[in-house]
Amino acid sequence: MKQIQKLINHIISRVNVNLRPMGLDVEQDLTSIINVNKLTEAYAYYALSIDHPIYFRFRESNLGGSYFLGKCDVDRSIILWSDIRGDELKSAGTKLNFSGVTTELYRDEVIQVVNSFLLKTLVHNYSRNPEMPEFFRILNTVAMHYANIHGTTTEGAYLGAFATADLSVMHNCILGNYCYVQAGDLSKVCIGPGRIWIKAEGKYEFNYRYPQATLERYISWDQNGELVGLFAEFLKGRRSDFLPVYDTLAKKFSVWVPENAFVSRYAVVKGDCVIGENCLVAQRAYIEHSVLGTGSNAQENSFIVHSRFAGFVVVAHGGKLVHCDIGEKVFIGFNSFLHGTEENTVSVGGGSIVMPHTIIHAYEPIKIPDETIIWGYVTKQEDLKTQSMSLRDFAKGKAFNIGRMSFYGDGAAFIRDFQNRVEHILVDNGARFDGNPESRGHAQRTQYVSYNLFQPYLGGEKKGMFPTIIVEDD
Amino acid sequence: MKQIQKLINHIISRVNVNLRPMGLDVEQDLTSIINVNKLTEAYAYYALSIDHPIYFRFRESNLGGSYFLGKCDVDRSIILWSDIRGDELKSAGTKLNFSGVTTELYRDEVIQVVNSFLLKTLVHNYSRNPEMPEFFRILNTVAMHYANIHGTTTEGAYLGAFATADLSVMHNCILGNYCYVQAGDLSKVCIGPGRIWIKAEGKYEFNYRYPQATLERYISWDQNGELVGLFAEFLKGRRSDFLPVYDTLAKKFSVWVPENAFVSRYAVVKGDCVIGENCLVAQRAYIEHSVLGTGSNAQENSFIVHSRFAGFVVVAHGGKLVHCDIGEKVFIGFNSFLHGTEENTVSVGGGSIVMPHTIIHAYEPIKIPDETIIWGYVTKQEDLKTQSMSLRDFAKGKAFNIGRMSFYGDGAAFIRDFQNRVEHILVDNGARFDGNPESRGHAQRTQYVSYNLFQPYLGGEKKGMFPTIIVEDD
Repeated sequence: MKQIQKLINHIISRVNVNLRPMGLDVEQDLTSIINVNKLTEAYAYYALSIDHPIYFRFRESNLGGSYFLGKCDVDRSIILWSDIRGDELKSAGTKLNFSGVTTELYRDEVIQVVNSFLLKTLVHNYSRNPEMPEFFRILNTVAMHYANIHGTTTEGAYLGAFATADLSVMHNCILGNYCYVQAGDLSKVCIGPGRIWIKAEGKYEFNYRYPQATLERYISWDQNGELVGLFAEFLKGRRSDFLPVYDTLAKKFSVWVPENAFVSRYAVVKGDCVIGENCLVAQRAYIEHSVLGTGSNAQENSFIVHSRFAGFVVVAHGGKLVHCDIGEKVFIGFNSFLHGTEENTVSVGGGSIVMPHTIIHAYEPIKIPDETIIWGYVTKQEDLKTQSMSLRDFAKGKAFNIGRMSFYGDGAAFIRDFQNRVEHILVDNGARFDGNPESRGHAQRTQYVSYNLFQPYLGGEKKGMFPTIIVEDD
Repeated sequence: MKQIQKLINHIISRVNVNLRPMGLDVEQDLTSIINVNKLTEAYAYYALSIDHPIYFRFRESNLGGSYFLGKCDVDRSIILWSDIRGDELKSAGTKLNFSGVTTELYRDEVIQVVNSFLLKTLVHNYSRNPEMPEFFRILNTVAMHYANIHGTTTEGAYLGAFATADLSVMHNCILGNYCYVQAGDLSKVCIGPGRIWIKAEGKYEFNYRYPQATLERYISWDQNGELVGLFAEFLKGRRSDFLPVYDTLAKKFSVWVPENAFVSRYAVVKGDCVIGENCLVAQRAYIEHSVLGTGSNAQENSFIVHSRFAGFVVVAHGGKLVHCDIGEKVFIGFNSFLHGTEENTVSVGGGSIVMPHTIIHAYEPIKIPDETIIWGYVTKQEDLKTQSMSLRDFAKGKAFNIGRMSFYGDGAAFIRDFQNRVEHILVDNGARFDGNPESRGHAQRTQYVSYNLFQPYLGGEKKGMFPTIIVEDD
């Protein structure tokens, strides 16, 4: 048997060992999605940065189209068109406190992907797993199109398309399409499609669930196992813009980038755009006819089209905005979709929080006031009544059910945690850089980045497999 | 001190340990040629082929713009825009006979470059060194622009620009610009510029020496240590055609390539060209408005412009042809320069041998009959009287001095050795492929070749250094 087929079978069997007892068999998914003949087509990218310790090893894998940064170790996995971004890995000697017990990292933390299949997935640390803090481990896991594995280690997990596992620890979990989970240590749970679930033990719990029919208009599978729906269409229409970006080694941008800002050469910048000071535009971000104010950032798989951002706007991984007007320090959560038109603009007032996995698909102009939290599914101004609150009102709440949303716990803590996180993201990304080296973030650090590019074998028994490659510091 | 400067100093000191006792100090050469700021600009390429065992390791080096194939190990070296082509490395178990003693390779042979500086150099095995057949070693060596290290191991060697060390073993040797040496085991010899020296102990010896003034028109150094002269100008005018080839990852050729032929994606093919069956066009070859008949090959750094080849023409590394008409099974030796114009074509009859480092710079049409051996410097038809002979006449000779050439020994053996070598090259390169897998050569074997691309650090203390990279089979 060809090696690549053996590898596919191996991954299926290992993931099934974890998940078949829970009723899931990934064989159908993987065999319908993986086109063995296409596994030779794309390069893998390892970013060499002077500000991140380097170590990269992969064995018995295919990494076509994927991008890696930081210390990574990949074994017996297929990682396609994904971003493995280890720029927040902890260093040896870092002290950690888990429930009052302090421990120290013996070695630098390494992202380790074993027996897994990731497709167009974003992996970003910061691990919360107390068991083995030297490894940010993704083991026996399948992640489908545009899933986010964010600060979450996984052992036996299935993430549906556009699902997000955020700041959690997962053992044997199944996440449906477009569900968002930030709920601590999870074992043997199955989270339905379109559920937004945030839980901090003893503090608060937030729940929202998309109506099934609505969700399926945006994300579903056809009878051949292909991803269909409005999200897939949105992405498909823009995919060809990325081709020249990947096909060239020359660096050319049609936009002026301030010295303290960073635009990845693997981003698309199209039409008239303005990139402000201290901005960060990650690889696979897409900016078209838009203005990014000072300190704003566009993370992986985000799309910003015909939109204007005031300063310090955070677009988390996979956020998509079309014809939007975004105020200062707004957070656009993971995989959110804010889609206006020229006549029907979506405006979001300063200081607002657009919850992860929010869809605002405007059929009329939509105006969201300053300091608002928005969730769920909004198509007209009136929908905001049941899908948003002022931060102030939310912070007063202890328990409420509004539309399909329910919350109980400390509303003020919930809002504060979000705001703190946004500020952390801004600081980490360099939005607050003031010339002082201490205030540098990713935008300033990733200035000197070069790339090593890897291709697989193109023929023979090993067709589609990459050789073993090790990149390390002297 | 920055690491790259430390590395440059290290190479200078190691090469000087070998060569300063012979009166050569490479410090001036290296410091004037190496522009530290330009060492970050180019990618290194490792070719992943299914037909050559892979192993690639480099440490503490800069390899900008260079290409590697086969098993290679590079340590503390700077290898710029060079081709390290290990497609004829011997496998473990290969039996070798050195002067009647048989020995067997314990491991696969590896090209090993240590403490060396190579610039636009072609390294092609097949090693003749009996001491350690597991290593094709280039140690403490400096090779300047477009030198060829061909089947020659070196320990302490300096090769001037366009110099060729062919099928030899060198310890502490200095080769002047444009000299060609094929003379067995050499120790502490200094070979002057423009000398063509072929010696087979007990069989024959061939010598030619270019007039100094002539040589300097083609190759010399200006006061800043820059390579100047007609060769440098010829190359400079065509350098920009290579840029798009290196800047793109997409494979596009303006020419149809037969299934059993190979055109490297890192070759330039420009204007109307025809590539015949079983042809091989290596990386860094340049073909413009030319026809390559069946089984012809264009090796690294060869230029074929407005020329027509009958079948089975071999252009060795660095051969340059403009407005030439080349008959069947002609050998164009290393770094030869056959330069005609539209009115003044250079025609070479079938079966002829153009000796390595021959310059035919036509100021009138030049017609060389079939089965001729040509050497030296030719600008008009009359020059052929003192710079060529029929193969038949040469084969009869035992000793002769013609013009600046002298020969003694077995003329028939000399011609036969050349002809055998040409046939070997044709077979190795796949020119004789007839559909039978046994008859496959490089043209057929390198069909499935992919590339791993490496960049150095772009900033900081390690600016210009590559990380340690290891590529190996599982």
